[in-house]
Formats: sequence, structure tokens, C-alpha cells
Amino acid sequence: MIKVIKNGTVITMDNKREKKFEKLDIVIKDNIISGIENNYKGEYDEIIDATGKIVMPGLINCHAHLGMSIFRATNDNLDLNTWLNDKIWPIEDKMTDEDIYYTTLLSCIEMIKTGTTTSNDMYMGRSGILKAINETKVRLMIAGTCIGEYKKEVFDNYEEFYLNNKNNEMLSFSIAPHGLYTCSKELMMECKKFADKYNIPIHTHFCENESEVKTIKDTYNTTPINALNDLKLLENKLILAHCTFIEEEDLKLLKDKDVSFVHNPVSNLNLGCGVADVITYRKNGVNVCLGTDGQGSGNNMNMFYHMSFVDFLQKGKYKDPTVFSSYETLEMATINGAKALGLEKEIGSIEVGKKADIIILDLSNTEIYPTPDLITQVTHNVESNNIDTTIIDGNVLMKNHKLLIDTDEEELKKKIDSIIFNLIK
Amino acid sequence: MIKVIKNGTVITMDNKREKKFEKLDIVIKDNIISGIENNYKGEYDEIIDATGKIVMPGLINCHAHLGMSIFRATNDNLDLNTWLNDKIWPIEDKMTDEDIYYTTLLSCIEMIKTGTTTSNDMYMGRSGILKAINETKVRLMIAGTCIGEYKKEVFDNYEEFYLNNKNNEMLSFSIAPHGLYTCSKELMMECKKFADKYNIPIHTHFCENESEVKTIKDTYNTTPINALNDLKLLENKLILAHCTFIEEEDLKLLKDKDVSFVHNPVSNLNLGCGVADVITYRKNGVNVCLGTDGQGSGNNMNMFYHMSFVDFLQKGKYKDPTVFSSYETLEMATINGAKALGLEKEIGSIEVGKKADIIILDLSNTEIYPTPDLITQVTHNVESNNIDTTIIDGNVLMKNHKLLIDTDEEELKKKIDSIIFNLIK
Repeated sequence: MIKVIKNGTVITMDNKREKKFEKLDIVIKDNIISGIENNYKGEYDEIIDATGKIVMPGLINCHAHLGMSIFRATNDNLDLNTWLNDKIWPIEDKMTDEDIYYTTLLSCIEMIKTGTTTSNDMYMGRSGILKAINETKVRLMIAGTCIGEYKKEVFDNYEEFYLNNKNNEMLSFSIAPHGLYTCSKELMMECKKFADKYNIPIHTHFCENESEVKTIKDTYNTTPINALNDLKLLENKLILAHCTFIEEEDLKLLKDKDVSFVHNPVSNLNLGCGVADVITYRKNGVNVCLGTDGQGSGNNMNMFYHMSFVDFLQKGKYKDPTVFSSYETLEMATINGAKALGLEKEIGSIEVGKKADIIILDLSNTEIYPTPDLITQVTHNVESNNIDTTIIDGNVLMKNHKLLIDTDEEELKKKIDSIIFNLIK
Repeated sequence: MIKVIKNGTVITMDNKREKKFEKLDIVIKDNIISGIENNYKGEYDEIIDATGKIVMPGLINCHAHLGMSIFRATNDNLDLNTWLNDKIWPIEDKMTDEDIYYTTLLSCIEMIKTGTTTSNDMYMGRSGILKAINETKVRLMIAGTCIGEYKKEVFDNYEEFYLNNKNNEMLSFSIAPHGLYTCSKELMMECKKFADKYNIPIHTHFCENESEVKTIKDTYNTTPINALNDLKLLENKLILAHCTFIEEEDLKLLKDKDVSFVHNPVSNLNLGCGVADVITYRKNGVNVCLGTDGQGSGNNMNMFYHMSFVDFLQKGKYKDPTVFSSYETLEMATINGAKALGLEKEIGSIEVGKKADIIILDLSNTEIYPTPDLITQVTHNVESNNIDTTIIDGNVLMKNHKLLIDTDEEELKKKIDSIIFNLIK
């Protein structure tokens, strides 16, 4: 099956073509990008006309909790503990895997409609998550979540899930201890063992706010990065979400390590954490990527919305508009995300041989016209109605704004309403 | 002519009804809100069904440069001087009033499509601006702009414009010296005279960045607010755009004065100015409203986009998520804007007797579903495709996303392309 995306202006995010943005044809054979050509004359089964449109890699959301869609935008004017105790935990405690199927399904549709092709999820209810992924065909890194003390059955259960699903091409896997401040040392060590055994990343919350940093320092008698080092966790592939407070001195320890920081700018502001020093992290060679967090604190999973905050916050933090470019933001949301997940040979850019995770943007609507600077427009002025087509693993999941998956959106919304009604009553 | 907006959930922004958000019918007689009722049974000429939708006051953009639409999102990674010298001024110098008609027209359509019903404009080319306003029927405060030294002909020209147009119900007027740091004392005094003569506000840039504050301190040997006081300008109605750097001590001078600060969060980040201390300003009784600035630094004039930054930046600045609520943001974008422009008896809330400047939102699309907290959703997750209907002065300018004005959008975009081609060649 050969599909050709014809005549779009292509943002490849391939270093070799950086900032050239030519009009090109993208040839997709089954699920793989098989050609990037000036005027493709070969065979095809389907043409997707992208004339006047933008073709770019699907976005990669490196820290998300897809099951939390029903908590969308609930953290107004609340401190973290009140929010968790009143709005989140009592409800989460009652959620079944079937509930999580529906709440995750809602987030998968949000991904497709807002141009995200891969998310790095961290939530419970794996059977529900799996069902939602199989139905919508989005790409997901799925987590073996754990917190508190080590429980063998939790690991056995995840191991079974891993072994049963490791050949699912749309899935990759992490082990996800909640955080250094909420997990025992024993649990962290078991996570390391599991990660070593199956060569998968460890995905964890890290240095999100100042009280967490204090707790870690009190527990480990050293800085959080040093604590990771002492536990030999820096030898692993680490995906550290938030990293709002990392001391510059400690960044040296990360040199040549396989550690990625996931910047969550919206959630970090909304929860009153602050603004991560992305510039210093990047200068010190850390791979910084982008996440939305759950919709509770991140408000939505529209990566275009979250991208708009990245350069602004750095420019504001440094009081200097020259410190950060929109292209760096786009790297964070695409190729850097792929690197964080260990999938840089498969996704994150439009290159021959990579998986066909591609989105097409239509920027012609009057209210954002004109587009003198393509990358600034893409990172700041794209709304969901600008996302015309979403292709994941060669499957066209949305075309001309029309969802092509087998889910009835109106029925899903009714189901979501009834879940909320039942959980909150 | 009686129109009834039927059965919507109404956010009135009327203090008396604060946060009740009932299902109500809004009755519009000609251009005035004549009734807010539970189930209107009277006569009507047109029903606008808002079942399942949100009805709220149109947004008020208190600092804008509508003619700058062609510079949209051009300030990536550039310092202010480079941006102005290379990207803005050489082109602005060549713009004719006819060019400004088209670039303003584009912004007027952006206003209608993104739910802004009034803007406080500051740009040259008044004959072009007037033509665009008459064509699109948006509400505008139009500025008599000036900079540098006093020139009598500039004032004579504006006076003639004012006298010719003062009965235009869609227009109000300001005198707009560029800034204390770019205008001579004589020019400021002439602006004061003009403002006094016609009882109109003074709209000016104020304390946008640190170098501006330094210039004012060097010139006036005192703080910027004290300088305004010494010039007796605090006796006037003042609309001060930006106010990123105001010393708290000076806020006392503003007590019981008719002074409004226009917060421009996106532009202030994008130009590396910083984050205004909105909380301290509000605590000291200053009327703080919201502006987008021009699209060059603000990226767009979609007030919903700009609203999303307001509470986040305060929560981040104070490292406390409880310091600011979404409702306060909405006040800034509606009723506080009306107060700033001296139009609080006419616009800014849905109340009987006020002008019918009303928008209707449809929040039912899957990608932002559900809406557990109405005001947080409205201030953070509304995109232009959620804005269903825009009514200004009783005129339905957009209904079910369809623009009902007499402008051909495709022709306008072609015209914009040719203007850019001609100005930049």
C-alpha cells in the first residue's frame, strides 16, 4: 500500500535539511516513509493533496496521564494538596479499568485531533489503556506504575502485561516509579532491575516543586541528581518529568548519560512550581523534550498549546528575547521527544526509513493570516482547527478534519458524562 | 427589531449575579440588551438558539495595533531594536492609508472570529482604520497618535477627524502619545490639553521594559508614576499599556485616580520584558485590564489565547497556585476593559440597558471535553473554533462560525499577500 503526501511545504526536523522547508512529496509504503522527493512519479494507491499546506512530524508528548481527561482544567486557584485530596484522589480511587478505557479513549481522540502521534503515558488501568490504544491506533509508551513500598505482585502483573504485548508495534514500555520522594529505596532498586532486565526506560516525576526537592535532600542527604547517581540510576535510560529545580552544578553528572528532562511548562505554572531553566539544561547537553502532564494541571493535551509557552517563558525568565528560538521548541516537541523515548531511529522526524507519523496543517484561515515566519506560526498560532490530517504508523486517522477511527464521539461524550456522574455522586 | 438568545448558560460578569451561570434568555432590542429572563415569552423577530452553549460578554482588548497584522509572529529570537529596525519600521514607513485599511480589516475579522467585540487601537492611517470599522461594524477606541515633538498640524488633523466622527456609535476616541520616553514634555502637555478639551482618555505605552524606566528616571529625575504626577497627568483618565515595572510605593499615588493598567502578558514575554505584577496592582486598587499588543509581538489578537497566560504567569511568579483565579482573568478581559475605556455603563457585561456586545461559545467538541469548571475552561481551552456567534451592537456579525459581514475573505488574503510583496520588495 503506497500513499503519497503531495506538494506540501515540509518541515522535516531532520538536521541535514534544517530550516529548508521545501515543497516535497512524501511517499509512505505501508507504515514506513519510503521516499522524500521533489516530484514523485512512481506508483501509488492513494494521494493526499497537501498543496498550500504544511507537512511535519507528529508531535511527541513525553509526559502525560491519558486517563485523567475527566479532570480537565480543575486546578483553578487551589493548592496542590487541596486539589489532590478534594478533586483527584477520591475519584481516582473509584475508577475501574473500564472507566479508564473511556477516559483514555477521550485523550487518544484529543491526541489525533491536536496532532500528537505519540504519548508517554503514566497511569493505572492498563487493560483499559490497551483497549483504547488498539481502537484508536495512536502510538504510546505505556508505564508499569508503582509508588510507596515494593510489592512483588505489582511487578509480576506488569511483567506479564509486558511479555504479552511486547510485540505490539504501537506500544513501547517504561517502568514508572512515581517519584524519588514517594517511593522507597527498595522500590527504586526493583524498578532498576526491571528496567535492566527488559532494557526499557525509567519514567518518573522529578524535582517538580521545592518541597519535593527538600524531601529528597532530607532523605538522601544529597541533591536529587546525586541521589540518582548514588542509586546507580544514572546508568539507566531515564525520563525525568518536570525538573523545575535542578542545580547547575549537578548537570555535569549527566554528561554522556542517557537522561532526558521533560519540560511541562503549563502544569508547572498552574501548580505554582515555577519555570524550569530549559536554556541551562540544554547548554549542559541534557536532552530536553516537552510534555503536557494530565489535563488536570495541563488543562489539555494539545501540544501546540503547550509549545506556545516554551520560548515565551525562557525569554521572560532571562529578560532577553534572543535566548530561545521557536525552532528549538519544535525540536523539543518532535525529535527530542523521540530521543527521550529511545525511539529516535523510528519517529520524531520525516526521514526515509522512519515510521510514517505525520501531520498536515492548514494555516490558511483568516484569523491567523498571514504566515511570514513559518516556524513561529507553527509553534504559536496553530489551533486544533488548523490540524487537517493525522497519520500514525501509516494509518490515516484523521483527514480533512474528519476522524477516521471507529469511535462514536457523541456516544463517548455521553459515556464520559455518566462516568463523572457515577464517580462524583 | 427584537432578537432573543435562547436557553444558553450565561456568564454575565455582572457583580450581582457573580458565578451563578444560569440558563437564561437574553433579549436584544435593536442594539440594547432589554431583558435577561428565565423563559422569555414576549415578541421577537429572530431567535438565536444557544441550547448547550455559553453566552458571555464580548471580550475587550485594551491595547492593540490593528494595522500590524502583516507583522504577525515576526519577533522570534530577535532583540527589540533589530526587530523594529529590520522587520517593522522600514515597512511601516511605506504603508499607505489604503494598506492600513486592509491590514486593519484583517484584524477586525480576527476580532470577530475570536470573540473580541471592542479594541483599543493605537495606529496611524485613520482614514483606513475608519473604513475597516465601518465595513465590519466592530467597536473601536481610535487613537490620535503622536511621538517626539509637538506638531500643531497633527493635532489639528486629529481634531478634525474627531469632530467629524464623534457621533459614530461604534467609535470612541483617545489621544495617544507614544510614551513618556519618546515624547517631549511639551507634547505630553498638548495631549493633556486635548484630552481635557474633549474629555477623552490618554492612551500610552508605559514602563514596558527596564531601559524605558531608566530613560524616564534620567529625564524626569523621579519614578515614572511620579513623573506623570508632576505633569498633572494623573488628573486625567489614563490607559497605561504594559506597566511591567511599577514600584509598589508609587501605586499609592494612583488611589482614587482614573488610571488603568493594560496587562500584555504575551508581548511582555516575547520581547523579553518580564511578567507584570498584576496581583500587587490589583491589591492596590488599580483597574487592570488585558491587551494583546500588535500581532508582531503578541502573535495574534485572539484574547482567549492571551487570557490563558494571565493566571499561569501570576501563579508561576508567586510560586503559589492560589494567588489568582480564572474569574479574575475574565474580569480583566471584560468589565475591567470597559472601565479602562470609560465605557463601563455601555459594555463589558450582560446587563439590561447595556449595548448588545455578546458572544456565544460552543464547548462541545471532543478535544476539549468535558467542562467540569466553566470559567477555567473558558479562560484556558477556548480556541477560535469554539466561538460560534459574535454580536456587536446588536448586529450578528458571525453566526454558527459563518462570517456575516460584507468582506470576501479570500480576496482580502490575496490583497494582503500583494501588500506584503510590494512593501518588502
